[in-house]
Amino acid sequence: MKYCSECAAAVSLKVPDGDDRPRYVCDHCEIIHYQNPRVVVGCLPTVGDKVLLCRRAIEPRLGFWTIPAGFMENGETMLAGALRETREEADAKVKNESLYRLFDIPHINQVYVFFRGELDGDFGIGPESLESRLFSEDEIPWSELAFPVVTDILVDYFDDRRRNDYPIRLGKPGPLWAEHVNWNFDHS
Amino acid sequence: MKYCSECAAAVSLKVPDGDDRPRYVCDHCEIIHYQNPRVVVGCLPTVGDKVLLCRRAIEPRLGFWTIPAGFMENGETMLAGALRETREEADAKVKNESLYRLFDIPHINQVYVFFRGELDGDFGIGPESLESRLFSEDEIPWSELAFPVVTDILVDYFDDRRRNDYPIRLGKPGPLWAEHVNWNFDHS
Repeated sequence: MKYCSECAAAVSLKVPDGDDRPRYVCDHCEIIHYQNPRVVVGCLPTVGDKVLLCRRAIEPRLGFWTIPAGFMENGETMLAGALRETREEADAKVKNESLYRLFDIPHINQVYVFFRGELDGDFGIGPESLESRLFSEDEIPWSELAFPVVTDILVDYFDDRRRNDYPIRLGKPGPLWAEHVNWNFDHS
Repeated sequence: MKYCSECAAAVSLKVPDGDDRPRYVCDHCEIIHYQNPRVVVGCLPTVGDKVLLCRRAIEPRLGFWTIPAGFMENGETMLAGALRETREEADAKVKNESLYRLFDIPHINQVYVFFRGELDGDFGIGPESLESRLFSEDEIPWSELAFPVVTDILVDYFDDRRRNDYPIRLGKPGPLWAEHVNWNFDHS
């Protein structure tokens, strides 16, 4: 951020009175431009012992498999956003949705909120996807998953399904994705 | 938003190629300035059959009682933000924290994520509070609570405590707060 979005004057990074951290503050109109984490919402569509994944048609991680998800928009609820992303990426509807998994990813200022739900009818391929497909646990392309959160949700989902208990969990993404895709974070 | 924060040129509200809703787009450098919901994080500190509330020293709802909460900051987890707000507003620490309650408030583009936790040691009065106090259920000042989410969490908490079961719930704020404080949303 270089300029004030309200008056076009330059902004400076400084700690406002009464605050405890630097913010972008307009040198002219003194508006404080707060920057806050963004919420990514998504949904894992399930049918029987299978889950629906999409192969990404866009960067980052083009060609890798993911769960329908994307940035939450103003004016929508978390569930509405998750269902919108499911329509957009997999041309799919779900029913009996439940809140399922929350992740903190503080180093990129993101919060993830995932639901699960039963696939309701057919599915297709949205404009941001190359392919959509149902996978049982032994068919999951573990080394071709797009993001750490995808690996974690799928591992948990199949475990939870075996126990028929689906607790809502909160945490940071774990190391499983990097191990499966042979990703070295030191060189990412 | 009137000006581009990267180049100071004017922005126009228009639907970018491949998008489905209007965004602020720079007329000069064509950067798209996305606007997304913000996350409010908070924590209900409990001790025995009591909860810790703070009386607000700032607008909105100055003088009314609330649970420690505020905007999540970049670089922190949801829990870290909730604990920070608890320190800042009630000069308090908590232990054994659990995710407890999520709210969607789409008409103001906010998501609330509340934890509960046991008060750990003393408490005090932060700079944004006039007063902090422990309340048992029959002492809660129902007509003087600051926001709908506060009423909903307190009603749920005392119910959950009776059953000794604290499910994680997601929903929009309910009508109880408006009834208790005699608030008419039509004239708000």
